[in-house]
Amino acid sequence: MGHKLLLLTKVNEQYRQLIEAQQLPGLELLDDNPANISQANIWLAEPKLAAPLLPHAKQLQWLQSSFAGIDALMGPRARKDYQLTNIKGIFGPLMSEYLFGYLLAHVRGHHFYQQQQQQKYWQVQGAMRHTSLQGMRLLILGTGSIAQHVTKTAKHFGMHVTGVNRSAREVEGFDVILPLSQLAQALGQSDVVTNLLPSTPETRQLLNESMLAKLKADAILMNVGRGDALDLDALNAQLIAHPAQQAILDVFMQEPLPATHPIWERTNAIITPHISAPSHPEQIVSIFCDNYRRYIAAKPLQNQVDFTQGY
Amino acid sequence: MGHKLLLLTKVNEQYRQLIEAQQLPGLELLDDNPANISQANIWLAEPKLAAPLLPHAKQLQWLQSSFAGIDALMGPRARKDYQLTNIKGIFGPLMSEYLFGYLLAHVRGHHFYQQQQQQKYWQVQGAMRHTSLQGMRLLILGTGSIAQHVTKTAKHFGMHVTGVNRSAREVEGFDVILPLSQLAQALGQSDVVTNLLPSTPETRQLLNESMLAKLKADAILMNVGRGDALDLDALNAQLIAHPAQQAILDVFMQEPLPATHPIWERTNAIITPHISAPSHPEQIVSIFCDNYRRYIAAKPLQNQVDFTQGY
Repeated sequence: MGHKLLLLTKVNEQYRQLIEAQQLPGLELLDDNPANISQANIWLAEPKLAAPLLPHAKQLQWLQSSFAGIDALMGPRARKDYQLTNIKGIFGPLMSEYLFGYLLAHVRGHHFYQQQQQQKYWQVQGAMRHTSLQGMRLLILGTGSIAQHVTKTAKHFGMHVTGVNRSAREVEGFDVILPLSQLAQALGQSDVVTNLLPSTPETRQLLNESMLAKLKADAILMNVGRGDALDLDALNAQLIAHPAQQAILDVFMQEPLPATHPIWERTNAIITPHISAPSHPEQIVSIFCDNYRRYIAAKPLQNQVDFTQGY
Repeated sequence: MGHKLLLLTKVNEQYRQLIEAQQLPGLELLDDNPANISQANIWLAEPKLAAPLLPHAKQLQWLQSSFAGIDALMGPRARKDYQLTNIKGIFGPLMSEYLFGYLLAHVRGHHFYQQQQQQKYWQVQGAMRHTSLQGMRLLILGTGSIAQHVTKTAKHFGMHVTGVNRSAREVEGFDVILPLSQLAQALGQSDVVTNLLPSTPETRQLLNESMLAKLKADAILMNVGRGDALDLDALNAQLIAHPAQQAILDVFMQEPLPATHPIWERTNAIITPHISAPSHPEQIVSIFCDNYRRYIAAKPLQNQVDFTQGY
C-alpha cells in the first residue's frame, strides 16, 4: 500500500526537490492542492501551519514537525490520534552559535570597540567585572538535547553550568541540576541565564516580574526557548531600572514583535527575529527520510512527542 | 643566597601584592628604583619594557615574560646569556573567545540585526553563503599551544581546520597540516584565515599583497598573532576592492594604530586595540611562582624560549 505525503512549510518547493531526490519506496508526494489535506496519511509540516488544518486531516497517521517546538499542536483540545515526531539534535550547534556569539560580544566588549573604531581611537576597555567567560556561572532553564549541547559549549569556554528541570532529574554534562522549584534562588547566583524550555502550562510567564527581580545587577538574560516564558513588559521595566543588565531575546509572545513595543529601544536589549536555530531543509529531510524508513518497516519512530508531557 | 626580583610591567603594584601574598622562599622583591635594574637576577617583565633596559641588567639570570610574544627580546644582536621563559597555556581560551566572538558575530549577522533593531524592523537576514560555522574551512597560521586550543573550539563548532607550520610537522587535533610553502594554495581554499604566528624573520610581511590576493571573495581574515605578519596597506586596498571580505585585526606594526591610517574607516574591517588575549596578573603570577620554585630547586623551567628559533 502506498503512502501519501503532504508538505506544509514556507519552502515547500525546496522540500519537494530534496525528498524526490531520495526516491523513497512507496511514497507519493502530493501537490499543494487543498483537497490533499484530507488524503495524506503523512505530513511534513511546520506546527503553526498544520494546527488549523488538523480537523480536516482525515487520513493522518504520522506528522513529522520541521521544528523542535511543537506547542502549536498541544493543548487540551488538540488531536492526539496520530504519531507526532519533532526535530532534535540539529538545533544544539546552531543555538550554541547564537548564544555564544552574543554572549562573547557582550562580555568581550564588541560594542565598546565598535564605537571606539568609529572615533579612530585606541584604548583598552576599562575595568569590567567579567572580561572572559571563564568562571562565569550559566543557568540553563531546560536540560534537553539543545541544553545539553549548549552545556558542552559552555564547559569548553570554562563556565560553571547549572541546569533546571522539573524534578532535578540528573542529566550528564551539567555541574549542578536543580528543580524548577528552586529557580528564584538559582537566578540570584547566576551571571548568565538562558531559557531553553518548551512552552508548557508550567513554563508560561515563568520569568515574571518577581522572578526577574532576583537577577544580579549585571546579569545577562537570554530567551531562545519560547516567548511566552517571559513577561516582556516586566523585563522592559527591569532593564530601565538596571542599566547594567543585558537581555538577548530571539522569541516573543507575538511574532513579529510589534514596532510599538518599547523594548525595541532598550540599549541593553538585543532583539533578533527568531533566528537562533533556523531549520535547514537538508537536515530536516535527512531526519524525515530516516523516520520514513522506520515507519514503513513498522519500527518505532525517532523523536516521538509525548502528548501528555507536551514535549 | 637570596634572589632579587625586578618587576617591569604596566601594573607593578598589582603584581607586587600578588607575589608578596605567595611568600616565596628566599625572594626579595625590589622596588621600582632604577638602580635595581643592575641588582636583580630575576625579572618578571613585559618584553617591550625589558628590551631597552637589558644592557644594564648586570645580574640577570632569568627573565619571565608576562606575555606570550617575546619578539622584542629577539634579534641577532639581542642578549642570549640568560634564561627566557614566556607564558603558554592561558592565552588559548582567551584567544578562542576573541576569535569565535567576532567570527560568530560576522557569520550570524549581528550587524544586520543591530541595524534592523534600530528601525524596529523584524526580518530574517537574506541569503548568505554561510549561516553557520558548521562545515566552514578554517586555516590557522601556526600550530602552537594557542592554535591547538583554537582548533579545539573550531572542531566543537563543526569547522574543518587546517594548520600551517614550517615543515608540516604533525600536531594533534588539526584535520590537515600543511607546510608554510603551501600557504598560497591553502589561502584560496579557506573561508576563515587566522594568523597566530609569532614574529620571526620568516613570518614578517608573510601576508603581503600577492598572498592576500589569494583569499576567497568572501573570506574572513583575522590577525591576532603579530602586526608585522601583515601588509596593512595592501589589506586596506584589498578590502576596498572586495567588499564581501572581512578583516578582524587586533595587532598592528605600529601600536596604537595611528588615527590617520585609512583602515580605521573600512566598514569590512574590525579594529581592536590588542585585547584578544590580555595577560591577567593572577594567572601570570601563578606561572611565575611555579617557575620560581623550579628555579630554586635547579629544575628545568617551564616554557623556555629557544633564542635560535625565536619562540
